[in-house]
Amino acid sequence: MKNSFGNNITVTVFGESHGPGIGAVLDGLAPGIQIDEGSIRSKLSMRRPYGPIGTARREKDEFEFLSGVYSGRTTGTPLTVFIKNKDVSSVDYDSLKNIARPGHSDYTAFCKYHGFSDPRGGGHFSGRLTAAIVAAGAILESALEAKGIMIGTHIKRLAGLEDRDFDDYEKDINKLSSLAFAVLDDEVSVRMQNAIKAAADEGDSVGGVLESAVTGVPAGVGEPFFDTVEGLLSHALFSIPGVKGVSFGGGFSLADAKGSEYNDPFAVKDGKIVTTTNNNGGVNGGITNGMPLLFSVAVKPTPSVYKEQQTVNFEKLENVSLKISGRHDPAIIHRARAVADAMTAIVIADLLTGRFGTDYLGGDR
Amino acid sequence: MKNSFGNNITVTVFGESHGPGIGAVLDGLAPGIQIDEGSIRSKLSMRRPYGPIGTARREKDEFEFLSGVYSGRTTGTPLTVFIKNKDVSSVDYDSLKNIARPGHSDYTAFCKYHGFSDPRGGGHFSGRLTAAIVAAGAILESALEAKGIMIGTHIKRLAGLEDRDFDDYEKDINKLSSLAFAVLDDEVSVRMQNAIKAAADEGDSVGGVLESAVTGVPAGVGEPFFDTVEGLLSHALFSIPGVKGVSFGGGFSLADAKGSEYNDPFAVKDGKIVTTTNNNGGVNGGITNGMPLLFSVAVKPTPSVYKEQQTVNFEKLENVSLKISGRHDPAIIHRARAVADAMTAIVIADLLTGRFGTDYLGGDR
Amino acid sequence: MKNSFGNNITVTVFGESHGPGIGAVLDGLAPGIQIDEGSIRSKLSMRRPYGPIGTARREKDEFEFLSGVYSGRTTGTPLTVFIKNKDVSSVDYDSLKNIARPGHSDYTAFCKYHGFSDPRGGGHFSGRLTAAIVAAGAILESALEAKGIMIGTHIKRLAGLEDRDFDDYEKDINKLSSLAFAVLDDEVSVRMQNAIKAAADEGDSVGGVLESAVTGVPAGVGEPFFDTVEGLLSHALFSIPGVKGVSFGGGFSLADAKGSEYNDPFAVKDGKIVTTTNNNGGVNGGITNGMPLLFSVAVKPTPSVYKEQQTVNFEKLENVSLKISGRHDPAIIHRARAVADAMTAIVIADLLTGRFGTDYLGGDR
Amino acid sequence: MKNSFGNNITVTVFGESHGPGIGAVLDGLAPGIQIDEGSIRSKLSMRRPYGPIGTARREKDEFEFLSGVYSGRTTGTPLTVFIKNKDVSSVDYDSLKNIARPGHSDYTAFCKYHGFSDPRGGGHFSGRLTAAIVAAGAILESALEAKGIMIGTHIKRLAGLEDRDFDDYEKDINKLSSLAFAVLDDEVSVRMQNAIKAAADEGDSVGGVLESAVTGVPAGVGEPFFDTVEGLLSHALFSIPGVKGVSFGGGFSLADAKGSEYNDPFAVKDGKIVTTTNNNGGVNGGITNGMPLLFSVAVKPTPSVYKEQQTVNFEKLENVSLKISGRHDPAIIHRARAVADAMTAIVIADLLTGRFGTDYLGGDR
Repeated sequence: MKNSFGNNITVTVFGESHGPGIGAVLDGLAPGIQIDEGSIRSKLSMRRPYGPIGTARREKDEFEFLSGVYSGRTTGTPLTVFIKNKDVSSVDYDSLKNIARPGHSDYTAFCKYHGFSDPRGGGHFSGRLTAAIVAAGAILESALEAKGIMIGTHIKRLAGLEDRDFDDYEKDINKLSSLAFAVLDDEVSVRMQNAIKAAADEGDSVGGVLESAVTGVPAGVGEPFFDTVEGLLSHALFSIPGVKGVSFGGGFSLADAKGSEYNDPFAVKDGKIVTTTNNNGGVNGGITNGMPLLFSVAVKPTPSVYKEQQTVNFEKLENVSLKISGRHDPAIIHRARAVADAMTAIVIADLLTGRFGTDYLGGDR
Repeated sequence: MKNSFGNNITVTVFGESHGPGIGAVLDGLAPGIQIDEGSIRSKLSMRRPYGPIGTARREKDEFEFLSGVYSGRTTGTPLTVFIKNKDVSSVDYDSLKNIARPGHSDYTAFCKYHGFSDPRGGGHFSGRLTAAIVAAGAILESALEAKGIMIGTHIKRLAGLEDRDFDDYEKDINKLSSLAFAVLDDEVSVRMQNAIKAAADEGDSVGGVLESAVTGVPAGVGEPFFDTVEGLLSHALFSIPGVKGVSFGGGFSLADAKGSEYNDPFAVKDGKIVTTTNNNGGVNGGITNGMPLLFSVAVKPTPSVYKEQQTVNFEKLENVSLKISGRHDPAIIHRARAVADAMTAIVIADLLTGRFGTDYLGGDR
Repeated sequence: MKNSFGNNITVTVFGESHGPGIGAVLDGLAPGIQIDEGSIRSKLSMRRPYGPIGTARREKDEFEFLSGVYSGRTTGTPLTVFIKNKDVSSVDYDSLKNIARPGHSDYTAFCKYHGFSDPRGGGHFSGRLTAAIVAAGAILESALEAKGIMIGTHIKRLAGLEDRDFDDYEKDINKLSSLAFAVLDDEVSVRMQNAIKAAADEGDSVGGVLESAVTGVPAGVGEPFFDTVEGLLSHALFSIPGVKGVSFGGGFSLADAKGSEYNDPFAVKDGKIVTTTNNNGGVNGGITNGMPLLFSVAVKPTPSVYKEQQTVNFEKLENVSLKISGRHDPAIIHRARAVADAMTAIVIADLLTGRFGTDYLGGDR
Repeated sequence: MKNSFGNNITVTVFGESHGPGIGAVLDGLAPGIQIDEGSIRSKLSMRRPYGPIGTARREKDEFEFLSGVYSGRTTGTPLTVFIKNKDVSSVDYDSLKNIARPGHSDYTAFCKYHGFSDPRGGGHFSGRLTAAIVAAGAILESALEAKGIMIGTHIKRLAGLEDRDFDDYEKDINKLSSLAFAVLDDEVSVRMQNAIKAAADEGDSVGGVLESAVTGVPAGVGEPFFDTVEGLLSHALFSIPGVKGVSFGGGFSLADAKGSEYNDPFAVKDGKIVTTTNNNGGVNGGITNGMPLLFSVAVKPTPSVYKEQQTVNFEKLENVSLKISGRHDPAIIHRARAVADAMTAIVIADLLTGRFGTDYLGGDR
């Protein structure tokens, strides 16, 4: 399916960094979902470059609906959200023509598209496309929230610094929804931002680890053998440019644990079944167990660094050295958190719609 | 798609642990692929319980083709491989009825299937289904090998012990293909096996981290935005019971690195474009760059431990304590390596078939 | 998807005419559907050669469940039904090797599978595969019936003879369920059977037109733009070997009508909305309107005729003349009716499951 | 997949009749396909209302590419074509609110979307969406033409009048490409246009039968069991509003023939394998046989007639009588021919891309 994802709710993305704009089509939506434009704007602002640590490209990300919205609600037919590209700088891309920027997709895109893809600003491979994902996901985040399902992501680790764990999930998720730089511990937040600035000052960049939580998903959701909660979420999350790892619950860090430590004991608490630990990240056998979903996403350092790099001209098959100029982020992880939330919303909404039918997330009738 | 995976080559799995058997349907295969039954048996033997450290259930895994094979080659129509269940013990499953084994899918399956799923031996959620994956994957591993593509997986980490990195990929993959316990360093191998036995002696279990490599995949394969190499592989790999994390190249461990360290410099070597490091695991922008694919898979400790555990009767909503008996593996990671290889073969074959057409992996004509 | 069909309930077919057997995997079934083996046998008997007018190959079609059934009900995991091939005659297929039987798929299969497909009895292209469809569909027909949805098909036209229209749908469908030769007018039935025998006596064959009705489907089901009720049903029905046309309601015969004649007036009757005619076959804009679905399926005459035919050896590129021997049906339309019912059940169950969720057709809990 | 269609090349449609516009996303395109804007305009003009017999709504159908085109060629990433709605009249839709126009989707859309769908001009169910299909299909028609594959459709039957059969396919298809009203026999063309005008004068409408031919498709294309050429084409063609029947080759009209008459004899002619008749419409066993594809599409009379009709207010559950005003076509069949061509191009391009790989239809490199 290439640029589409989802079985019951399907999202299709299109666009290029310096073309007319970027967009997403959401199909399979319930009719009657309220469109909260303020909430979409708020999510988009979380994805935009932040304060002094961001790229100089500052798009306002003014979205418009090309289809699927009538009188402020979803119609149930395909919803297309479109964001025009405006702040497109006139960098001379010809100077970079056929030069593979290390860590970027210039060379692989050339191998796949034979030189026909749009080279400007990464074309279809630009992180810019994630703005469309964020706008589309924001609609579903609202619809899920109306069902008591909340999603939040913080920067768990950056440049060797660690944020605290989720504690009171709902409270923490609420806090995150108001933060431009998503770190739960305010002091760690300042230090992480300083670390980004320090890297930027060196012409370098940093990556990190995001951690996401989803509360309120009922037990019994997931479609193993293949469409496990983990499989679907990881598939979607790896689409975010720069993501190089996805893990659930204990993930890699608990691979050394014993079974007796890793297993999450079940218990009845207030008449409900819970687990007293959450090493499985809310998923057993690929199906939700009613505990918060908990997963981590490793984001590599932004590949655009200003230091001199060794690389090739892939058409001439020549070694060259390269020094990138232009406007680039020294980190994207704080922006990626909004994309992770959006992707998660799309996957969870897809699973719930399959499980409970096309009207499940729809408006009151 | 639930129990099917793949866009061009599709695998569908079916079966239950203690039902008539387990199977897989491969659709979209090229016609004329040689069926190497010895190779299938060899891969199946790698998935079977090993030596003194395995479960007492010892299935011979005798496979038969129900369709799609004629005169020792694939026909191009759906190939169904079926493995009868034979060594099905007569454990009294009623004693466990409605008791949630921690770390298992009993409770989540109940929430999803309302008590109608086959409770015997984990039913459809048993690791046993992976035998069908291995048999199906083995056919594609042979077809890929004929195209110069090799796949190998070793146990990178187990109980705090680390295997050495891949060095000469092809040589190492060849070595792995002859090992029942897939560790490159022979001494580490012995210590890991001892660690498993030690855990077993305590009635406990261990997990670990697998690392897989794929050589020979041409540059330019992958279908971003969503069907990235990473996204497809992770989706498939998370289907393997017990998998809790998937990462590519540097993954989580390099999240603290700087961009200037993480980026893989390109270079022309012997007239070919290569990268001099492989932190991106052979993938840029979701598309192969011609370097070996390199990824890690975190496998949680087997949930079946013999220590007493706290849990619930989910029908009566009562806390109970549980002591599991029966035949169980103190580790599955050494068996999971065969499944990882098979899943990888299916995904790579799927991508190549989409890219180059349905005859690409087929027999000579 | 090639050999799989359906979005929410997916059926995958496999097998060859003279291989080990034929089968189907149903995925996405609700858990708890009662398996009525008698009903499956009854549907299979409708597909089997009938009385004096059928082929000499007489398979008992003894089905077995390889997966997905426990204690007489669906588990909700993939259900695999398998039918072993038994009455496989030892015809010398080599004499026909590389000879294209006119109207058959020998030549096209050669072009697609390069000579690797199973040549015996048509291989994967044999009508025999429809037995698996019928068995799978029978399970869904029962589940739909429990929801008040009934499906029936009669031979509307054969050799210039016409059966009467549906009159009282439910009564007629009940009558059809007890008929081995599905014609509503008993006298027409005899004449049609005589026409088949007359064609057989000349070494020739006949086709005809089936008409199907489905009652009880609620209004509001269908997924335009592309997954219209008509589009999904026609896609599935054209898979039945020999089908060359599908139309809904008035279809081709009303193409000459005026809009004022074709439009179906709506009316409120007994507090329910109905249409007073049904030229649209129960579908407006690709979505059910609550009236019986009504559609026709054109089945071409069986291509196996005993008269001498002109054709080619496609390997030698030579003209040859051919006289077919062996066991063949002078008509398959009376058998195809069971397949049409089954396909219809699969499509309707798929649509309803998508609309109302995975438990919709499931057993009582 | 609802509003998406295709396995290798996927088209997704969106938009509403009186919303911002309508569009289509083509995914899976080969890179480097030349965009011939003149050809797109020409195809769009064939879909537009014609001369004196058309609706008064006259959209210029100015398309723009929102993505996927760079320097006049496809990039290989999703191509989005968008057509703004301009000539949107200010009809008072409230007067029709909750009134089911017979033959239209008002009532069924209400049942499905619970009153949230866009009611203006049929919303997502308007024939207007087919303009996006035509624009998208035109790109593929050009790409196929470069491979020697030609597609053409004529009005075979209208109001009891019959056009002549295809004779010299390529010559006839060329002629059709220059005709605004697609009838091969010029005299019949005039009579058909007069018949439409006569119906219009009575406030009534007419339907008819289209016949399409595709030449140059190689033998061996098609993916049975389910993704037969017939199944895929019919699925797509039934999406065209008003289509009520699809048949291949002899179709319904030959259902009375004998097998010996229906079978198409094969012969070697000029070193190539052909059939001497084409009752199977170029398809055997769901796979192309190298002969021209030939199929018919029954189009019902336009449901918008100006005569008084009986219907209901579906919210109040009341019988009402209705007299439609506004701008409507007395026939759409001459416009539907452009949509049939486009749908056919999409399906054929999809099949060829799956068969021969993603670069098959791409530009020279």
